[in-house]
This record gives sequence, structure tokens and C-alpha cells, in this order.
Amino acid sequence: MAIIAVDAMGSDRAPKPEIEGAILAARQHHVHILLVGKEDLLQNELAHHPQAARLPIEVVHASEAITMEDKAAQALRAKRDSSMRVGLRLVHEGRAAGFVTAGNTGAAMATAKIILGTLPGVDRPALAAVFPTAAGTAAILVDVGANVDCKPYNLEQFAIMGEIYFRSIFGTRRPRVGLLSIGEEETKGNDLTRQAYQLLKQLPINFVGNVEGRDLYNGQVDVIVCDGFVGNVALKISEGVVELVREALKDSLRATITRQVGFLLSRKAFVEFKKRVDYTEYGGAPLLGVKGVCIVSHGSSNANAIKNAVRVASEFAEHKINATIEQELSRLPAEVTS
Amino acid sequence: MAIIAVDAMGSDRAPKPEIEGAILAARQHHVHILLVGKEDLLQNELAHHPQAARLPIEVVHASEAITMEDKAAQALRAKRDSSMRVGLRLVHEGRAAGFVTAGNTGAAMATAKIILGTLPGVDRPALAAVFPTAAGTAAILVDVGANVDCKPYNLEQFAIMGEIYFRSIFGTRRPRVGLLSIGEEETKGNDLTRQAYQLLKQLPINFVGNVEGRDLYNGQVDVIVCDGFVGNVALKISEGVVELVREALKDSLRATITRQVGFLLSRKAFVEFKKRVDYTEYGGAPLLGVKGVCIVSHGSSNANAIKNAVRVASEFAEHKINATIEQELSRLPAEVTS
Repeated sequence: MAIIAVDAMGSDRAPKPEIEGAILAARQHHVHILLVGKEDLLQNELAHHPQAARLPIEVVHASEAITMEDKAAQALRAKRDSSMRVGLRLVHEGRAAGFVTAGNTGAAMATAKIILGTLPGVDRPALAAVFPTAAGTAAILVDVGANVDCKPYNLEQFAIMGEIYFRSIFGTRRPRVGLLSIGEEETKGNDLTRQAYQLLKQLPINFVGNVEGRDLYNGQVDVIVCDGFVGNVALKISEGVVELVREALKDSLRATITRQVGFLLSRKAFVEFKKRVDYTEYGGAPLLGVKGVCIVSHGSSNANAIKNAVRVASEFAEHKINATIEQELSRLPAEVTS
Repeated sequence: MAIIAVDAMGSDRAPKPEIEGAILAARQHHVHILLVGKEDLLQNELAHHPQAARLPIEVVHASEAITMEDKAAQALRAKRDSSMRVGLRLVHEGRAAGFVTAGNTGAAMATAKIILGTLPGVDRPALAAVFPTAAGTAAILVDVGANVDCKPYNLEQFAIMGEIYFRSIFGTRRPRVGLLSIGEEETKGNDLTRQAYQLLKQLPINFVGNVEGRDLYNGQVDVIVCDGFVGNVALKISEGVVELVREALKDSLRATITRQVGFLLSRKAFVEFKKRVDYTEYGGAPLLGVKGVCIVSHGSSNANAIKNAVRVASEFAEHKINATIEQELSRLPAEVTS
């Protein structure tokens, strides 16, 4: 049974979603949970869930918590006993197979890099966001914030790691890998993407060339590679658009009684729709390239999101994704990993 | 009465939307239209609209048309008598106050730069996209594709030009100008945005600092500055998300009879919603920094989009936006315009 450490102090409404998510995960998946955080707080909260006592859930004490406002570098220095650090140490020491946090993304990445270290051959770890497409499939965007100002070989490594991750988790034999750019031709894009294109087309992967922003969600590509600045902007713009559409529809649907009746009748469609574009189904973003398993979930995660992140962490460990990344990077010509 | 030249051969369904849009514009706004394109084709199409004969609409012949597939540089060299080139020459020669095209964006920008030239002090012209926000206001994103690989002073000029444009067209006294980045703090972002931040905060504009992707659509900022690569990705991702949401809702709403009834009852809401996020209401993207007025509309423009683009072109000319840009750039310290 995989042991997964869960940062119980991370999310906006911690520790509630974490504890409920841990209970769901322990019940539905074959996992043992280590809830990391302030022991008294967690035991108090667990007392509200008597069924937890019969499940493989343990509390591991950590006296501090990193907040969303903390700066990554400062948090690393100042909070030596944070739930994030303690949880990642459990992974590093082999006491847990993976770690899940819905806390401060910057701090999670920085702490993971320090505590776990990077895999041999990896220049920079990258965060991969998983999201739904119009085709009903999932796609991943890598990197979404770990690295701004990338070199072409960083994008090459993101492609390799992202491809392996997608293949392992979604079972696609030859995932289609695209480079996020502003035109399909090889010559389109900026200096970085034009150089990265030349590296990617030589890789033993199913490289489909440049893809544009609108291809992210159409299901024509599985793994989309970009630098962390562009990836983070892309992710947040998507959130903004969904918010805009939701608000605009809500306003319109409230305007008259007829429409309200209409809305009630079509309600189930909206619930389904929401589920379909619901990131919580995908369980968070894996940090690729660190020596260990670290899954970063959204700060607004609910119990379902945490449960799915735990499942993803356990699958990540089970599929030995890191061993594959190490192996495939070692096969590349030397300049790639320089 | 402002004379506006309209590329009649540009859009995906040219010349229909252009001709219908010209008729609407000539009727509703105080403008005289020069329809630029193949004379026989245009006269044939105009014959279907007898009312056009009583409106201030003329045809100006151009024997060639640039297609969406044409490469900008090649089109410039090979098609010396394209509707784009002829239309922009009308502006350059002072026979038209502005030019509107729904054709190949890259070719439009390249041709405008060659035929019109750039304003004194402008290093690189920039394309500004106008879009709706959740607050019911408009916002602009500049640059959305004219310039990849920018220098910090390019972003500074985009900010100045965008601010003047927004102020002039939307009548906002002190538009809020933000720098698109991945975190609010001054130190967040990549090398380019961090350096640009230092320039922008010294400008005599209402600079609100870094904004994130999700702020594009929330109405908290009016003018959002970024390089053309990021801007183009941002724009196309937004299109992709809207498409995803639309498809997902449509599928769900079709699934059962009850929902279909619900949908019919709430139909007006959807029509209203569509109008609210309808880019055609905003009439296209102005190319800022060229010596003349050039508005680039979406290839899928309908008559309404063309009509609004004509209105925007005429307002652009009327408000003497270029004179203001020239003036305000000349007031800046020398290194900005170097």
C-alpha cells in the first residue's frame, strides 16, 4: 500500500479539505495517508470524522505552516518545521512514496528542490498543469510557473518529462507533444521557441510541431511545452475567461422569470458542464524532475481535489516515472543535460 | 466627413461582410467608404444592394488580394497591387483618413509599416486587441502579435501608445495601465518584465503595476502591456477557452428533452451573453505607432465587425491619436526613443 504524505495546512480552507480528502482517498484508493500539520488542530478536526479512526490515516506533527503570502525564499529559511518541509522530508527519507500540497506553489517548488533535489540530468524541474479539452481528453501544459527565462534545452527537458508523465498516467502510447508558439510553421515564434523547435524535432517523441493558444483546449495535442512565464500567464488567463463566461451567463440567466425557469430546467446541464471543466477531477500539478513525488494542488482545492491528488501521487510513484525520466535523459546527447 | 478605405478582399468570406459592413457604416456613421478590391467582383456584389448606390460608397480597383496563407514578406514583394497595399497607399497619400482590413494580420502589419512608416520616436508599432471584461467595460492588450522578442523600452512605448489610444477612444481620463506578469510584486516576472516595470513606473501614466492573466477580464485594469509573443498566446488561449465552454455547454444542453426546453426558455440569455463577449462589437485591433490609421479586424469578421472597425478608424483619425502619441513620446527622456 502506497504511503502518501499530505500537507494538511496548505489550502485556503485548511485543514478541512485535506482531512476530508484524505478520508476519501483512504477509503477509495489503496493508500495510507500521513497528514502533516499541527497535531492538536488535526486531531480536533479528525474527531469530527469518527470513521477516520478505522482508516489508514496518521498524523505527523509539524509546528509551522507556510501561508500564501509567504515569499518562497523567506519561508524556506524562516520556517524550518513547516508542514511542507516535514512532508517532503518524509518522501526524501523514504517514509512516504509521495507528497501532496495545496499550499503556496512557489514555496512548494522551492522546498521540493532543496529537500528532494533534482533527478540526475535534470537542469530545472517543471510544474505540469493538467486540464480538460473539448475532446473530453486531458492535456498537460509544462512548465506553468517553475521557471521563467528558460533556455532551449530547458524546454527540451520539459518535453521529455511531460511526455513520460502523460504516457504513464493517461496510458497514451504516443502522446502528441507540441511547442506553444504563435504560428504553426517552424520559423514562427520567438528566439526561444525557434531554437527549442530544432531540439524537439530530433527527440524520439511524437512531436507535432508548433501549436497555438487555441490548441490547448481542442484535444489535438496532449503535451504542450512552454517556458514558465508563458505557461503561468496561459493558466491564469484561462481561469479569467472561465470566470468571465460564468459571470456573464449568470447575470443573463437571472434577468427574467422565464429565463430562471429555463435555467432550472437546464440546471443539470450546468452541473455536468461544471464537472467537465472542473480541474479538481485532475488532482493537481506534478512537479517533474525532482527526486521524489510532489503534487501541487490549487489553493482553493476541495476534498475531491485532494483525493485525486493523492491518487495521482500514488500512481506517479507506482509507475516509476522518475526512473523513466532519469533513464531517457541519460540517453540524450550530452549537450542536452549540460 | 471622414473617408475610410476598406480592404474588400480581406476576410474569410470576402467581399460579402466588407460590402455589407460598408453599407451599414455609411448609413449609421458619418463616413465615406472607399471599397478596395477587384472592381468587377465588387460592382457585381454591390448590384445586390441597390441602396448602396445612394450612399457615399466608391470602389477603388486593386488587381490582387493577399490570402491568409500568404507569408507577409512574400506577399509584400510579390503582390504590388494588393487591396491592402492600395488601401494603405490611399491613407499615405491623404486620400483616406484610415484603413480597415480583415485580412492576413502579419501582411497588414508589414505592409502598413512599409507604406505608412512609423511615427517619429516609435521604435516598433504594436497591435492592440480590444475585448470585453466582466465589469462590462472594455480593456486593451498591447502588443498581440506585431513584435516577439521585445526590449524593455518597447514595452514602455506600448504602454504610452496604448494609454493614449484607450483614453481617446473610451474617454477614460486616467486609464489604469498594467504590466502582464506572473505575480503582483515588482520583483516577479521574467527579465523583460522586471526591467520594463522600472521604466513604466516612471511614466506620467496611471501605472497600477504587474497584473496577472486572470486580471485581463476582471475589469480592474484598462490597458495591459506585454510582448507580442505573450499577447498573441493570451489572445488565442482566450478564444480556445470560450470555444471549450461553448461546446461543453451545448453538448450538455442537448442531452435531454427537459434540458432542451430549459435551453429554449433561457435562450435569450445566451444570445445576450454571446453579444456581451462578442469581439465584433469592438471593431478590431488598431495598429499603434504607424504614420496613419490602420485597423486590423478578425478574419471571421461579419458585417457588424466591419462596420464597427470603420467607426473605430474614423474615431482614431478624428481624435488625432497619432499626433498625441508623437507629442508624448517626444517629451520622454532620449533613451526611450533610442
